[in-house]
Amino acid sequence: MVVESPGVSVAPDGTAYPLPADAERAADAERLSADAQRARAEGRQVVAVQGLGFVGVAVAACVAAARDEAGRPRCFVIGVDLPTPASYWRVRRVAEGTSPMTAPDPDLPALLRDGALVTGNLRATTCEEAYGLADVIIVDVPLHVPDRVSTEPAGLAIDQRSFEEALRAVGRRMRPDALVLMETTVPAGFCEQVAAPLLQEERMRRGIETPLLLAYAPERVMPGPRYVESIRRFWRAFAGIDRASTARARAFLSSFIDTTSHPLSELADPTSAELVKLLENSYRAANIAFIHEWTLLAEQLGVNLFAVIEAIRVRTGTHDNIRNPGFGVGGYCLTKDSLLAQWSATHLFGTDVVLRMTLDALRINHEMPLHTLSLTREVLGGSFAKRRVAVCGISYLPGVGDTRWSPAEIFVDRLLTEGAIVVLHDPYVPVWPERPDLSVGQDLATALHGADALVLAVPHAPYRVLSSEALTRMVGRPAALVDAQNVVDDETAATLRAAEWRLAGVGKGHWRTRRYQCTP
Amino acid sequence: MVVESPGVSVAPDGTAYPLPADAERAADAERLSADAQRARAEGRQVVAVQGLGFVGVAVAACVAAARDEAGRPRCFVIGVDLPTPASYWRVRRVAEGTSPMTAPDPDLPALLRDGALVTGNLRATTCEEAYGLADVIIVDVPLHVPDRVSTEPAGLAIDQRSFEEALRAVGRRMRPDALVLMETTVPAGFCEQVAAPLLQEERMRRGIETPLLLAYAPERVMPGPRYVESIRRFWRAFAGIDRASTARARAFLSSFIDTTSHPLSELADPTSAELVKLLENSYRAANIAFIHEWTLLAEQLGVNLFAVIEAIRVRTGTHDNIRNPGFGVGGYCLTKDSLLAQWSATHLFGTDVVLRMTLDALRINHEMPLHTLSLTREVLGGSFAKRRVAVCGISYLPGVGDTRWSPAEIFVDRLLTEGAIVVLHDPYVPVWPERPDLSVGQDLATALHGADALVLAVPHAPYRVLSSEALTRMVGRPAALVDAQNVVDDETAATLRAAEWRLAGVGKGHWRTRRYQCTP
Repeated sequence: MVVESPGVSVAPDGTAYPLPADAERAADAERLSADAQRARAEGRQVVAVQGLGFVGVAVAACVAAARDEAGRPRCFVIGVDLPTPASYWRVRRVAEGTSPMTAPDPDLPALLRDGALVTGNLRATTCEEAYGLADVIIVDVPLHVPDRVSTEPAGLAIDQRSFEEALRAVGRRMRPDALVLMETTVPAGFCEQVAAPLLQEERMRRGIETPLLLAYAPERVMPGPRYVESIRRFWRAFAGIDRASTARARAFLSSFIDTTSHPLSELADPTSAELVKLLENSYRAANIAFIHEWTLLAEQLGVNLFAVIEAIRVRTGTHDNIRNPGFGVGGYCLTKDSLLAQWSATHLFGTDVVLRMTLDALRINHEMPLHTLSLTREVLGGSFAKRRVAVCGISYLPGVGDTRWSPAEIFVDRLLTEGAIVVLHDPYVPVWPERPDLSVGQDLATALHGADALVLAVPHAPYRVLSSEALTRMVGRPAALVDAQNVVDDETAATLRAAEWRLAGVGKGHWRTRRYQCTP
Repeated sequence: MVVESPGVSVAPDGTAYPLPADAERAADAERLSADAQRARAEGRQVVAVQGLGFVGVAVAACVAAARDEAGRPRCFVIGVDLPTPASYWRVRRVAEGTSPMTAPDPDLPALLRDGALVTGNLRATTCEEAYGLADVIIVDVPLHVPDRVSTEPAGLAIDQRSFEEALRAVGRRMRPDALVLMETTVPAGFCEQVAAPLLQEERMRRGIETPLLLAYAPERVMPGPRYVESIRRFWRAFAGIDRASTARARAFLSSFIDTTSHPLSELADPTSAELVKLLENSYRAANIAFIHEWTLLAEQLGVNLFAVIEAIRVRTGTHDNIRNPGFGVGGYCLTKDSLLAQWSATHLFGTDVVLRMTLDALRINHEMPLHTLSLTREVLGGSFAKRRVAVCGISYLPGVGDTRWSPAEIFVDRLLTEGAIVVLHDPYVPVWPERPDLSVGQDLATALHGADALVLAVPHAPYRVLSSEALTRMVGRPAALVDAQNVVDDETAATLRAAEWRLAGVGKGHWRTRRYQCTP
């Protein structure tokens, strides 16, 4: 369990890092300054990456690894985050050349190690002096949204404070001609109407009157097996606040992205580039929500919706992105970006536009785990009281330990409220950072032993290979099984049912009816 | 204008066909019987296609053209439709080897001519005796839904009468071992719960006790330039009511579809196959509706949504099917298939599932033309009274004359209600079959002359090449232009604006703001 204490920053694996003293930070700032000057003298650009979260760490590693035609590093990169209990451990990890996140992509730890320990091209610090050393400052500080759903756009709020403070730190320190490149997902209009005035205010205070160079290029980082590729070989949209900013942003992005295979999309203005990100994630979220009501229908009609969708997905270009039924939606993007768009419409531009389908989709996705809850209640005979329920999978993606806004949370909380004895298992989640009060098991047999019901909430690989014999052995007797992710095939299901297991599956209407049979 | 008279069937081009007399039909039935027997003796399957609409005509042509390895025709095809004023002209057209529809795909008229006039392999009749000659009966009779939107699923109705009557005709005549292959889009469960009992009832009346052979394979025909390809080289889903029906359906579908490039998707039961079609069209409709609220947002934010979408669409596999803003949704499928699904949920299976997002999408699409209406009203200064409005494009697809459920209808009706003088133009629609009361011009200069506003409702090719000079010349003076389909590029728009035109565009927020400029 993670213990927070004021002078210490504790990593998820339990390593405790005492927060740096002022003298230590001052010495660090001096070293960085000397090293940055040397790097610049050697022809490298100095790049500061503000925010060492899921995006910032990977971006810093990729920029530090970029090479010119002669194989020389293009940039000297300084990752910057706060000297706080919540953030400092990340700084230390990057400085030590190890990944703060358990990354299923082996390229990320390799790049971090190489940058920090081999080339010395990647540094990490808590000193905001780093912004004053940089030719380019990349902003990857998260912009938090406390709400999960919005029924009344007028009441929708975002938490701008820490983000604005981060921007002010940049404005206080930045070189007059440095480019500020924002990558954080923000409301449309934010770059021009919020970020630019803040930076300008700080610059004016310093008497800087040259034009601000500011551009927006939303990150499209995908934590997962193609983590690094999602930065280096992926499409990016961008726009500057003026021609000079646009040109600088294009040149910089082209220095570490393979723009031959993935040409940049230049938009007319930052508001358009901001809308790219909000719309694409809202589209994805809406497509997920759309299938949920068809899931409920298919279950009632005795239809295997996965088979139906397979027959639709062959229509490439028009239908191949139709989503499968599932447990719910998690992660940092699909759960909030639609709210940023609505906030923009209502609070930044003062329009009366309500993104109704978009907000409906968000609510549907948020409540989706409650459907698995009712299937589980049903196979348990109507009540959770004192029933032992093993929840298999806590992260929000298969093969990944990312638990941010995981749908498991709402599911587990409801199980507990309804009196269940809840056992959690996830091979990729040793600790649940958002819920340190709940312990997560790493051994499946232990987790399943004696369960009345087991719920397959995430299609992690170890769950996909479970045979009916293994399940019965681990549980110790026939129990109830709820498959929320199409993990159990029909043959295994038939064997389990023959052995007196009770089954239910999200989108698996054929398990409910007489049509139920083995795959031929 | 089409004049309906009881004894005559008039084609859209004005050709009048007197309905056939009984003696004529009896002679026709005898000829068909002899020819079918000869064809069967020569090794050809006899296939009846019930319903000569957009689907049936094309299917009949493709099946008639199918050849075996030795180049011999596989089937003798008889198209069947009713001897009514509404339908008989289609029978005559097919019998004469000409296409009832203006088809932008030259393959269709070629196949029809070849089948009817060269190989003699394609016939058309009004005699239901044809069903008694067939080894396979393909049902392509439309199933109509009078409603356009549904707010209360309990009140939703479909018009089953003529469809059921068509099925009874098959049951009355079919050979006991013939396969009935339904292709019409129907509610999920319809094949097993409605069609099979009806056919069985008629067969029982005839004392037939052998098992009924019935399968469902939803058509995925796309009227347009790939009309014929959409039958011969496209994916198909199917399922029989039992193993024998499934096997017969697979063999028959494989005889005229290229299943090597496009393998068949075999579903577990007809209900699943029915759901394939309802879900895929509902998905498409929902994706169109989704973008509408972002269209309204982009317009308010001064953003060119087409550019934003272009930057999103590069993400193939996940985002490349995101739809553009537009004028509205028409056609026979996307406007009704969601209602069939809801009808199935409520009335056939008696569930309480409400496909809320799906039905919301349908309503949004139905009302979408009203947004172009308000843009038009706005550029005209707030009122349509006595203003001359030229509507360019009446069909629901570019390059196609298909006007079924065209969104132009709701738009035009509202224009007329609000007192506008409406002028219609469509190069592909000489007559508007659904609205014979309104005349459609074929000459653009005539249609535009003196217009106060012109609305580009369909991106037909002739509209896409219009220069600012041509527009000004045809109208005779600067006017208002509303581009509902991204037809006018920014450069042309800038020239028009400089010449005192007033402009608005669906999804073209950049036309509303100071950001507006030529493409660089």
